[in-house]
Amino acid sequence: MESQKVFQITHTDSKTKARTGLLHTKSGTVKTPFFMPVATKAAAKFINTPQLKEIGANVIISNALILHLNPGEKLIKKLGGIRKFMNFHGINVTDSGGFQMYSESIYLKSNDIGVHFKNPKNGDKIFMTPEKNMEIQLAINSDIAMCLDSMPMYEESKTSIKEAVRLTTLWAQRCKIHHSKLQKLKPKNRQQLLFGITQGGIHPDLREQSIKDLAKLNFDGYSIGGFGLGESWKEEMKIVKLQKSILPENKPIYLMGIGSPIEILEAIGLGVDMFDSRLPTQNARRGTLFTSIGPLKLLNKKYEHSKDPIDKKCDCFVCQNYTRAYIRFLLREQEPIGKELASYHNLFFLTNIIQQARGHIKSNTFSKFKKDFIKSYKN
Amino acid sequence: MESQKVFQITHTDSKTKARTGLLHTKSGTVKTPFFMPVATKAAAKFINTPQLKEIGANVIISNALILHLNPGEKLIKKLGGIRKFMNFHGINVTDSGGFQMYSESIYLKSNDIGVHFKNPKNGDKIFMTPEKNMEIQLAINSDIAMCLDSMPMYEESKTSIKEAVRLTTLWAQRCKIHHSKLQKLKPKNRQQLLFGITQGGIHPDLREQSIKDLAKLNFDGYSIGGFGLGESWKEEMKIVKLQKSILPENKPIYLMGIGSPIEILEAIGLGVDMFDSRLPTQNARRGTLFTSIGPLKLLNKKYEHSKDPIDKKCDCFVCQNYTRAYIRFLLREQEPIGKELASYHNLFFLTNIIQQARGHIKSNTFSKFKKDFIKSYKN
Repeated sequence: MESQKVFQITHTDSKTKARTGLLHTKSGTVKTPFFMPVATKAAAKFINTPQLKEIGANVIISNALILHLNPGEKLIKKLGGIRKFMNFHGINVTDSGGFQMYSESIYLKSNDIGVHFKNPKNGDKIFMTPEKNMEIQLAINSDIAMCLDSMPMYEESKTSIKEAVRLTTLWAQRCKIHHSKLQKLKPKNRQQLLFGITQGGIHPDLREQSIKDLAKLNFDGYSIGGFGLGESWKEEMKIVKLQKSILPENKPIYLMGIGSPIEILEAIGLGVDMFDSRLPTQNARRGTLFTSIGPLKLLNKKYEHSKDPIDKKCDCFVCQNYTRAYIRFLLREQEPIGKELASYHNLFFLTNIIQQARGHIKSNTFSKFKKDFIKSYKN
Repeated sequence: MESQKVFQITHTDSKTKARTGLLHTKSGTVKTPFFMPVATKAAAKFINTPQLKEIGANVIISNALILHLNPGEKLIKKLGGIRKFMNFHGINVTDSGGFQMYSESIYLKSNDIGVHFKNPKNGDKIFMTPEKNMEIQLAINSDIAMCLDSMPMYEESKTSIKEAVRLTTLWAQRCKIHHSKLQKLKPKNRQQLLFGITQGGIHPDLREQSIKDLAKLNFDGYSIGGFGLGESWKEEMKIVKLQKSILPENKPIYLMGIGSPIEILEAIGLGVDMFDSRLPTQNARRGTLFTSIGPLKLLNKKYEHSKDPIDKKCDCFVCQNYTRAYIRFLLREQEPIGKELASYHNLFFLTNIIQQARGHIKSNTFSKFKKDFIKSYKN
């Protein structure tokens, strides 16, 4: 797809860099900014696909590497691609799984050609190349694929991070070439989009190098990778600004792994368009719920008898029908329905905040909206 | 409530003892026969309350003893009773929990006054009397309560079972007296119903004693307790026939712990009105699914690539939208959505079969319907 057709900015806020847009994919168009619930294994945890629709979660992200290990991309292809496989009538994004391959327990070694790692299920050795990763994501047939990146760990030396940036660029080039080659016979409107992922940790010089290298490759969008490993939000914000300053305005920007309401609003204010994180659902299962006045630790004894909904200001199905006392009881008892209700609320809350943000961007009141939200949301 | 108002037989099949009826409770009227999903801790496993409604499961059963241990009946009462607590807009039945108290791990001893057992969570010793049990079930405010029964184990000697029958009768008398006393100021249409539970294992003489003892107490309905412990279906059927032959026709009969489609249809043919079992959902989570041609072992390798729904003849949301291959994959990965989809189908299947049975009873074709079902359903 030509980039101007992939992403259209529909409005830019008058006071910040926040913008609303339309992202066009082969499975439909979605309004930006948006948040993607994580569906690593082709299913969100405790939230089924009609519920995702109800919540207004129009885009989800699964993991190509995890799905490659099981059930395998061949099965998903045979079943009609991930959209049909999991019966999700929205837009499917796949992450390449670079992040997972570099986890200590399975990583073996990497070189210019690819990454050697162990299958965590059976110990089998696997060699993953950028080309193979593109083939997997195309077989899965997601709407947006991610390049295979090389993941530096936060605590690694600057030299290792520099090496990761070098490999990430090298692989991004090969991803782009192979991905284009594999799709060239498809009509533009049936093609999978491909996003580059920048690395470089919190080092502005390395990150700048990574962004500039990838910018040359003209990806459909650009992800900011390698965060969520211990760096501060302030450090992340600097990198977001840097990435925005180098890339053309008409490229969608995806900040990977960020799922807290305040950080999302701050990032939207800097012009970020896409988010994903496992935190909203993971926290929900562990009893931390979003509310308009800040996170609620529902397992706290003081909510034992509470007849209140999780958030009095929330319109979601859970807040309209269930009490804190009931959900707290179910979570303490590890009852699946407790996890479901908590997860539903957290995803609804986040989706709803971003939907409101879109409205405020359009009416040039985003800045005040963000300020007011942050003022009442006590961490 | 006067018994003729509690239960009305609307039609009796011309060839069998199957009947349709209306059971009136303070939360509404339900058509019999019906199956109750188990919601031990005030939540069905993986199926939320709107889904129960969708499935057509109008009555559920939770466990008074388990809820007494946590969160406690006081909390449930404070939150408006179990109906409001769990937001289930149907009819709530509570089991007394006699079954649980007699599990080897927590049972200490029993005498004429009540049962000593240990709280499995913290080891605290608890003394449960029939009176206390009635107070718990009234505080929980279910629509139908069960008497506290004394549970003989299947492998116990006939002498022990005889003693269990004696205690069960003694406690049933005390349950009835205390329950009536506690409710006497409430208008009839706000009163909780109370069912007796007969014991006696597979011994016709002991069971007959138990049924006759309880019949004198004029309960709103009669449960057949103490099954599901290793006896054969043939042995159970004999006891069902015996119980039906002694009790007046206008009493609803509840066969506890039976959840297989064929056994349910056979029991309906003998005039049983109510069923519950954890098997449909437990089996679902473990990969055994009901289909019109018999149970399907979904984890079997041969379904790995199957694009078929669980049951081609099933109209449920799961069969309309998901493949065997997808649900199998999710179950193998222990993904919660796999357990949800499988549980939803099994509950729908069973509810649907019983709904069909009601129609066939009314048109005097139940016998043929049962025969045809059993013929195609291969165990």
